[in-house]
Amino acid sequence: MSAAKSAESPTFIAPDALLAHWKGHRGLTRRLIEAFPDDQLYTFSLGGMRTFGEMANELLAIASPMLQGLVTGDWEEYSPEGVDSKGELLKLWDESTEEIEDFWSQLPADGFGKTVTAFGQFTGPVHWQILYAIDNEIHHRGQGYVYLRALGIAPPPFYER
Amino acid sequence: MSAAKSAESPTFIAPDALLAHWKGHRGLTRRLIEAFPDDQLYTFSLGGMRTFGEMANELLAIASPMLQGLVTGDWEEYSPEGVDSKGELLKLWDESTEEIEDFWSQLPADGFGKTVTAFGQFTGPVHWQILYAIDNEIHHRGQGYVYLRALGIAPPPFYER
Repeated sequence: MSAAKSAESPTFIAPDALLAHWKGHRGLTRRLIEAFPDDQLYTFSLGGMRTFGEMANELLAIASPMLQGLVTGDWEEYSPEGVDSKGELLKLWDESTEEIEDFWSQLPADGFGKTVTAFGQFTGPVHWQILYAIDNEIHHRGQGYVYLRALGIAPPPFYER
Repeated sequence: MSAAKSAESPTFIAPDALLAHWKGHRGLTRRLIEAFPDDQLYTFSLGGMRTFGEMANELLAIASPMLQGLVTGDWEEYSPEGVDSKGELLKLWDESTEEIEDFWSQLPADGFGKTVTAFGQFTGPVHWQILYAIDNEIHHRGQGYVYLRALGIAPPPFYER
């Protein structure tokens, strides 16, 4: 159980480092939201897609609610907020970040490999669920970058967290 | 060093699961490349940005070369390939995926927290370097989704890996 066990269970990343990584992404997404003109965040889109504000509403409905479900075992139905202003979105974004930190501290340190069903329909290991939330944020934020560029606005650098 | 050490070193995700996660992303990015019309991959763009083909060339210049550097300690200068056709890009993409698997198996299992300098300029833990490569792929692929939608083409679902 000591050295042998340790050698059999290598770690790619520890939970606290992963949370710091996620928070870096959340900070960048926040700066992207801020970079949108107030009157474009919930109106501008390309290719018939959703506005970046609507995408951010989706992100709010996944991240903190997912961690709440992972901690409590109670899964709310997926339901994006009906936010439609930058000020309200930024407020909810910051509250969501605080909730994420709070729930994270309650996640069992040895439970990230456990298989769970999120939101009553997505089954996989806890780390897979959490990476989905982060990857989905990066995915939609990348789309927001195109919107901003199309609006003639230089987005914050991707590598700054 | 046994139970106590184990409790002090929780794991978010193991290296083999992270590689599987990355390969899922690479498969999706490959399908996105395939979904582009041959004559748009290296010509179409929005907002004055690069084409998706050029972004994919960047991804090729980061992923496998980064792992090669992490394994060998030899860092090539960052230099994207001058590929400009879908067929050649898909060929290099597949070769890159094979190289990633090969290099991954040579990474020391206990070395993901070690701090290194990638490409002579980016300093951070090995896990941070690798997550940068993956996140950058997701980021640019999200931009490719907008390009495809603007071209009137339905992209492959984000959640399918």
